Amino acid sequence: MTDQHPVGSRLDPWIESYAARTAGMKVSEIRALFAVASRPEVVSLAGGMPNIGALPMELVGDTVQRLLLDQGLTALQYSSGQGDERLRDQLLEVMALEGLDAHPDDIVMTTGSQQALDLVARVFLDPRDVVIAESPSYVGALGVFAAYEADVVHVPCDADGLVPEALEEHITRLLAEGRRIKFLYTVPTFQNPAGTALFDDRRPRVLEICRRHGILVVEDNPYGLLGFEGRTYPALKSMDADGVIYLGTFSKIFAAGLRVGWAVAPHAVREKLVLANEAAILCPSAFTQAVASRYLSEIDWQAQTASYRALYQERRDAMADALRSLLPQARWNLPRGGLFFWIELPEGLDTKAMLPLAVKELVAYAPGTGFYADGTGRRNARLNFSYPTSERIHEGVRRFATVVEREQELLETFGPYDDSTRSRARRVLLPSPDVS
Amino acid sequence: MTDQHPVGSRLDPWIESYAARTAGMKVSEIRALFAVASRPEVVSLAGGMPNIGALPMELVGDTVQRLLLDQGLTALQYSSGQGDERLRDQLLEVMALEGLDAHPDDIVMTTGSQQALDLVARVFLDPRDVVIAESPSYVGALGVFAAYEADVVHVPCDADGLVPEALEEHITRLLAEGRRIKFLYTVPTFQNPAGTALFDDRRPRVLEICRRHGILVVEDNPYGLLGFEGRTYPALKSMDADGVIYLGTFSKIFAAGLRVGWAVAPHAVREKLVLANEAAILCPSAFTQAVASRYLSEIDWQAQTASYRALYQERRDAMADALRSLLPQARWNLPRGGLFFWIELPEGLDTKAMLPLAVKELVAYAPGTGFYADGTGRRNARLNFSYPTSERIHEGVRRFATVVEREQELLETFGPYDDSTRSRARRVLLPSPDVS
Repeated sequence: MTDQHPVGSRLDPWIESYAARTAGMKVSEIRALFAVASRPEVVSLAGGMPNIGALPMELVGDTVQRLLLDQGLTALQYSSGQGDERLRDQLLEVMALEGLDAHPDDIVMTTGSQQALDLVARVFLDPRDVVIAESPSYVGALGVFAAYEADVVHVPCDADGLVPEALEEHITRLLAEGRRIKFLYTVPTFQNPAGTALFDDRRPRVLEICRRHGILVVEDNPYGLLGFEGRTYPALKSMDADGVIYLGTFSKIFAAGLRVGWAVAPHAVREKLVLANEAAILCPSAFTQAVASRYLSEIDWQAQTASYRALYQERRDAMADALRSLLPQARWNLPRGGLFFWIELPEGLDTKAMLPLAVKELVAYAPGTGFYADGTGRRNARLNFSYPTSERIHEGVRRFATVVEREQELLETFGPYDDSTRSRARRVLLPSPDVS
Repeated sequence: MTDQHPVGSRLDPWIESYAARTAGMKVSEIRALFAVASRPEVVSLAGGMPNIGALPMELVGDTVQRLLLDQGLTALQYSSGQGDERLRDQLLEVMALEGLDAHPDDIVMTTGSQQALDLVARVFLDPRDVVIAESPSYVGALGVFAAYEADVVHVPCDADGLVPEALEEHITRLLAEGRRIKFLYTVPTFQNPAGTALFDDRRPRVLEICRRHGILVVEDNPYGLLGFEGRTYPALKSMDADGVIYLGTFSKIFAAGLRVGWAVAPHAVREKLVLANEAAILCPSAFTQAVASRYLSEIDWQAQTASYRALYQERRDAMADALRSLLPQARWNLPRGGLFFWIELPEGLDTKAMLPLAVKELVAYAPGTGFYADGTGRRNARLNFSYPTSERIHEGVRRFATVVEREQELLETFGPYDDSTRSRARRVLLPSPDVS
């Protein structure tokens, strides 16, 4: 059959004009997940949304109204490319909780910490440079590195996070191959997606290895204050100021919709980040920064963070109970903080291939392959417990378990799903949720 | 004398790690201008700030408070990478005023239109690609193109904007040289910095030339609704939907501090822009988008835009009067809209070299060289009239005229300033306002 509609040339008059980097831009799994998750009848364990229903919304509303009356003329105006000075000063108090002693001048404010990550990539990554990442790693970071045409190399992790010996081995091998390693990207504390925390005695070892090889560390820390064991971990940045760029965000301690994040970087790097920020957006929003600043000064944000933490711990426990009783086939580590379980299903199952069936059963999750740059993770899935209620979590896991059982039966009868033909037996046909 | 402090290597342990593009990142003139402008005793004609003092701030405060109570749970949450659907729908009404008939699905919301420009550059520009721009062109756009290592070629303009014959000549020459021209970047309506509008009969001609050569047009339109002649111009995008990417913003019709902008693009390009947006920031702020949406639906924004327009026209007239009476040496076109005068001083004067003296006289402006990628513009300056009051404008021009006169005397006595030695006669020493 002749294809009457060649993709691209006919549909896109500009297809010859794109930059080389654009070829690597694919429909992101994150966006597809949002689309799947948005139907109300679906129990979505797919996203990574904080539970802002726990916010004192009236108080926030009053605070923002007062802000506009008091300082609307600056909050609604252009501002500095580095970000609000007062807010940068206040952030010292937030970061001090993880032992970080920075200077406000070392901080750059960004449009969420995703943009901080984008700026770091922009400043450091040439095509074919290597970024070392955990195994698995944050899907949104992998998207950034792909956009800058870098190669991601995953280093094995266990229940205590990155394995230092494996890191050393990978670095040595890559350097011997003549590769340019630009940085280690890590979410050391309550990792997305794995839920692990880099164990205390591994922190200095990881830093020592990177320092010895002249490799920068990019520490992404959205969840550091969401630990369930009544403790925080010291930020890597607190142990090696010159060797680490630290990324923080208000998305999980206040509100993701503000898009207020920040980077703390060695001085010369910070200067480059500000320049990159100005080229990218001129300046971050003075308004959302002012809202974040008032949140820190006028609302008991530590109590609010504690209440997020308590809520998420309760839901983590609900998910752990549900997984134990309803999906005993799955292997996982109990998350020590953050928003996610990372589960491994029995050999032969494919979470991406299963997703349409799961959505038909009205449950969604994040397939594991999105968290690897190399196509692994097919047996894995990330399950979010911060957004759905404990009841919905139980129901979601129940529906998911139904799908897994059915898949296991199919697997026993017909053998594994063949990705090359996208078929096994005759499958239930339903609208695909556009996950590439 | 030996330099004891080599720049970089000693101060910056990561200097060997930066990407190739980072070498081109210089301290932006925009940032330096903000720094200069911030001292209250200085009359700043340097910035490009809208006069948000004209906003009904109490009403805005009440509206935002209500927004948080009504829809705080979505406004403070993660949202779609393409941007708020309702707001994209409302934007049709805004753009219809300039004859633009788009579909909400063709729109991507961004962190100010600067980020839209960054996304366009990211999707299209490889190093050494050519961007054609007006002469002069917007300093912030030149910063973006430099960040993507593109070469900017300026095409001559006159009082009626871009000269079509010159555009044709430049394109023909560049193509004959084998250069890859990726797009024409233009601010056709009330240009920054020139204040001109591309004359009606030139619009189809410019589009025809670009279409014939297969060159995309990027139409940056922050000022289209700020015309002083009781009229608007039809957007280029309204005349060639497939050949134009249109960029809009709330910065000048509402508030720059929100950082809400957008792009309207041919469908396949729009898809790339959304992917690039997700990699860069995940999603634009749901909160600031919701504020912009409420502004359009609950506040008489057209009346507010009309009042901005009337205020700026009054100040434009004040600046024209002051320039005529106090600085008759300067040549300029009367701005037809927007925020700026673009003036040319007599041969031999150098506005960048003069700036420290001007700041000592307590007036600041934007030196002309920032608006060219090729070092021209030394006799030019951009003067803003939207932010200072008419009285301050008069006083600022008076101070500026004093500096110009003194420079002209020096010029007659000692000859032109020598940029290579950064000296002429013994100059007044004062802290430099760090304009590179």
